[in-house]
Amino acid sequence: MKPAVAIVEPKTPGNIGTIARAMKNFGMDDLKLVDPPAFGRDSEAYGYAGQAREDVLPNYDEVSFDHLVENYHTVGLTATTNEDARKHRRFPFKTTDELADSLRDVAAPTVLVFGREDNGLTNEEVARLDEVCSIPASADYPSLNLGQAATVTLYELRELTVPETQLPDVERERADEAEIEGFYDHFGSFLDAIDHPEEKREKTLRLARRLLGRAHPTGRELRTLRGVLRRAMYHADDE
Amino acid sequence: MKPAVAIVEPKTPGNIGTIARAMKNFGMDDLKLVDPPAFGRDSEAYGYAGQAREDVLPNYDEVSFDHLVENYHTVGLTATTNEDARKHRRFPFKTTDELADSLRDVAAPTVLVFGREDNGLTNEEVARLDEVCSIPASADYPSLNLGQAATVTLYELRELTVPETQLPDVERERADEAEIEGFYDHFGSFLDAIDHPEEKREKTLRLARRLLGRAHPTGRELRTLRGVLRRAMYHADDE
Repeated sequence: MKPAVAIVEPKTPGNIGTIARAMKNFGMDDLKLVDPPAFGRDSEAYGYAGQAREDVLPNYDEVSFDHLVENYHTVGLTATTNEDARKHRRFPFKTTDELADSLRDVAAPTVLVFGREDNGLTNEEVARLDEVCSIPASADYPSLNLGQAATVTLYELRELTVPETQLPDVERERADEAEIEGFYDHFGSFLDAIDHPEEKREKTLRLARRLLGRAHPTGRELRTLRGVLRRAMYHADDE
Repeated sequence: MKPAVAIVEPKTPGNIGTIARAMKNFGMDDLKLVDPPAFGRDSEAYGYAGQAREDVLPNYDEVSFDHLVENYHTVGLTATTNEDARKHRRFPFKTTDELADSLRDVAAPTVLVFGREDNGLTNEEVARLDEVCSIPASADYPSLNLGQAATVTLYELRELTVPETQLPDVERERADEAEIEGFYDHFGSFLDAIDHPEEKREKTLRLARRLLGRAHPTGRELRTLRGVLRRAMYHADDE
């Protein structure tokens, strides 16, 4: 499930480039433009596309809105729904954080449809789409810039579209449970060695467990800490 | 918990405006700039700020990096960590989707620190920050544009910073359980009325329940459907 991305009547080439870049950042490559402005290699579209200027952007298809509706499962993005349960045409909508889950099992070719910079998708266009999705934002000013809205939406689909991120695997790097338990045992012996008051012992151990648990320590970090404990216990014996 | 947002040595005023706009979209207002370029009312900073040109942008503070480190819990954003468990200075990092949970209970004033357009934060700067956070993106091209990276990050904090979104409350609008169960009863009577084969009855009811359950129907939608069922049953009796 890797959706295409369509922009309906974008006015500024810069936004096309911004969206192409976000597509490449989040593993998407199929850009569709409905009635785009002319833009060349020296335009802001290419200027804003980053490395997507090499592939996503030049490989775009120019299509009609009808083509999208007829050939794809269509998901439209709108800033405000202007709707509630009393006008049920497009209610309930999805929010961006629900989108990946809801598209995971859709087998049909899917396209995310973004509207114009100034007034988005028309009511007639929205009525022809299969789903509508909104970005939850401040009631005071919910209208994101087109390029920013698309970036947030594509980011939320990364689980479906990015097979491998740039980040090391935290799970893999975290110390295993035996190492972590070994540290707590060692810390308990340390509390004994320094004559930590009996009545505080359990509470202190629990605190250490909570604190370290939150920090997801690596094996290296635990070994460093155990080195410190060993040295402190050696000195405690010494007295 | 409503963090401030700092940009360290931004080069292009447009990015400052883009970030100011995202701040207003996601309920933040305290913008700090470290060594910014000059920009006036006719600059791209104001051009890209949307309604944030009225408040967030003109109210920015110019501060030093030292000021941030000395007065705030600092969270730096970096595209690539270039680090793993063997160089444990900044490992493990957080990812943007973990950020709201991790900051929820931080009582100290907090600032999100974004770096330069071309090469982000220096290693020396990162070493002085309290936490580091990254946006999981495609290993092929993980580097987001500064404004886009900030937008994604601020979006992820909305739970802490946006008291009320522009969207109607889906939970509130969804039909209550009694209405939904009433519909299933009605649908069962409908299957009887149309002589739906006995052996398929349970499976069909289960399917209706699954399908409708996923769709979170409103009371109005259920009443419309029950009107349809009533009419169909009336005609079935008629034959």
